[in-house]
Amino acid sequence: MCELLGMNALHETDVNQSVALLRPRGGEIGPHADGWGLAFYEGRAARVFKEPIPAAESRCLEFIADYNFRSTIAIGHIRKANPPEFGRTSANTHPFSRELGGRSWVFAHNGKLLGVGDDSRFSLGRYRPIGDTDSEHAFCYLMDQLAKQSHGNLLEPEQLVSVLAAPVARLSELGEFNILLTQGIHLVAFTNRRLHAVQRRCLEGSCEQSVVVLATTPLTDENWQPVEHGHIYVYAGGEEIHRTKVVP
Amino acid sequence: MCELLGMNALHETDVNQSVALLRPRGGEIGPHADGWGLAFYEGRAARVFKEPIPAAESRCLEFIADYNFRSTIAIGHIRKANPPEFGRTSANTHPFSRELGGRSWVFAHNGKLLGVGDDSRFSLGRYRPIGDTDSEHAFCYLMDQLAKQSHGNLLEPEQLVSVLAAPVARLSELGEFNILLTQGIHLVAFTNRRLHAVQRRCLEGSCEQSVVVLATTPLTDENWQPVEHGHIYVYAGGEEIHRTKVVP
Repeated sequence: MCELLGMNALHETDVNQSVALLRPRGGEIGPHADGWGLAFYEGRAARVFKEPIPAAESRCLEFIADYNFRSTIAIGHIRKANPPEFGRTSANTHPFSRELGGRSWVFAHNGKLLGVGDDSRFSLGRYRPIGDTDSEHAFCYLMDQLAKQSHGNLLEPEQLVSVLAAPVARLSELGEFNILLTQGIHLVAFTNRRLHAVQRRCLEGSCEQSVVVLATTPLTDENWQPVEHGHIYVYAGGEEIHRTKVVP
Repeated sequence: MCELLGMNALHETDVNQSVALLRPRGGEIGPHADGWGLAFYEGRAARVFKEPIPAAESRCLEFIADYNFRSTIAIGHIRKANPPEFGRTSANTHPFSRELGGRSWVFAHNGKLLGVGDDSRFSLGRYRPIGDTDSEHAFCYLMDQLAKQSHGNLLEPEQLVSVLAAPVARLSELGEFNILLTQGIHLVAFTNRRLHAVQRRCLEGSCEQSVVVLATTPLTDENWQPVEHGHIYVYAGGEEIHRTKVVP
């Protein structure tokens, strides 16, 4: 079992707030000791940091925590290698990233997709996995569909969901599929097992701020809500802006 | 003016040896204060670290220096933003990276390619720049040619050079074009102005080691040789294995 973390804010906010939530869960208070990763955005470019070692022991994560990185979107992941034959390597560590239409796309998955690599329904085109995981295969498959149908143009949330609906539903049949996907503007979420969200509205200085945080399990004593199974959610500006049921 | 650094070794060697050469040149003893980047390989995956700040001030580079990262290939770059309208952002910082055929490809450029983005000979297909630089445009153009002609298969050195020959020659007409390109097995170099190489053969412990280091200007008092203008060089196993003249 891995842990997912997602953050979307109206105004850029400190990425450290996400790091702080993620860090103790990687090998200190959680069993997710095979790797950690964190992606956030600077314009159209994702900055992705990841390591195939426990988050709680990472000097790199410590270094990130020392910087004041700010972003409106972040995706974090703590990895428990599963199955163990997918080794502790950078290539197998989430989040994964690819370029489409001059933007970084970032993806992280919690779960297991049996046989996705050998299933002709999920054969790949221009995007190929660098590592061995079912997760990266699923990401490449989704990116292929997005590339074919968007021709590299930025899609409106409704179009984005309409491109993702059938592929996500098909992948969801293979097993546990809790995902976060983003191109730096929209944060897309889907779960068929376990994902929670909390909405925060607050003042940061004199600035009205809205932040949504997503996580496998509630990380604080706030009012976390389970994300509804079988629906694709789109978040932007720190709010849920779209929700479509894609799995009956 | 930027500075390039390339390293290819027969056996994995300490990436810190490259970091140590690069670091003081970014803002301490050199004028290249707008960013630094370093890429090396773990299997088919590149690990790319970069920051739009002077290398000499970077805590991230300090953190890398503390690790014992090992690789057979590394590409480093120190950036002087040129023209200054290409801002100090991560997206504009070298090296750039894209996936093709399930491998990370990495590219860094020193020089200036006037008008490459507006020239219909260099219009782009599936790879698009995330940042604003002429360098990333040139990289995307080269990746397009590689994707079209390799269909994602790993090319032999001769095939690789034959795909790159005409595109590199065309880009070289636009201005100063000193580049390093790799897919983690072969290190490709081209210069039309300034690039130097030094060959080291030594014992590391009881292990025979061969290392070639490339840099804009000689970095040590060893016997550096200028890289011949207008030729594509391919290095593998710590040796030059191929050289073809592509510009008359």
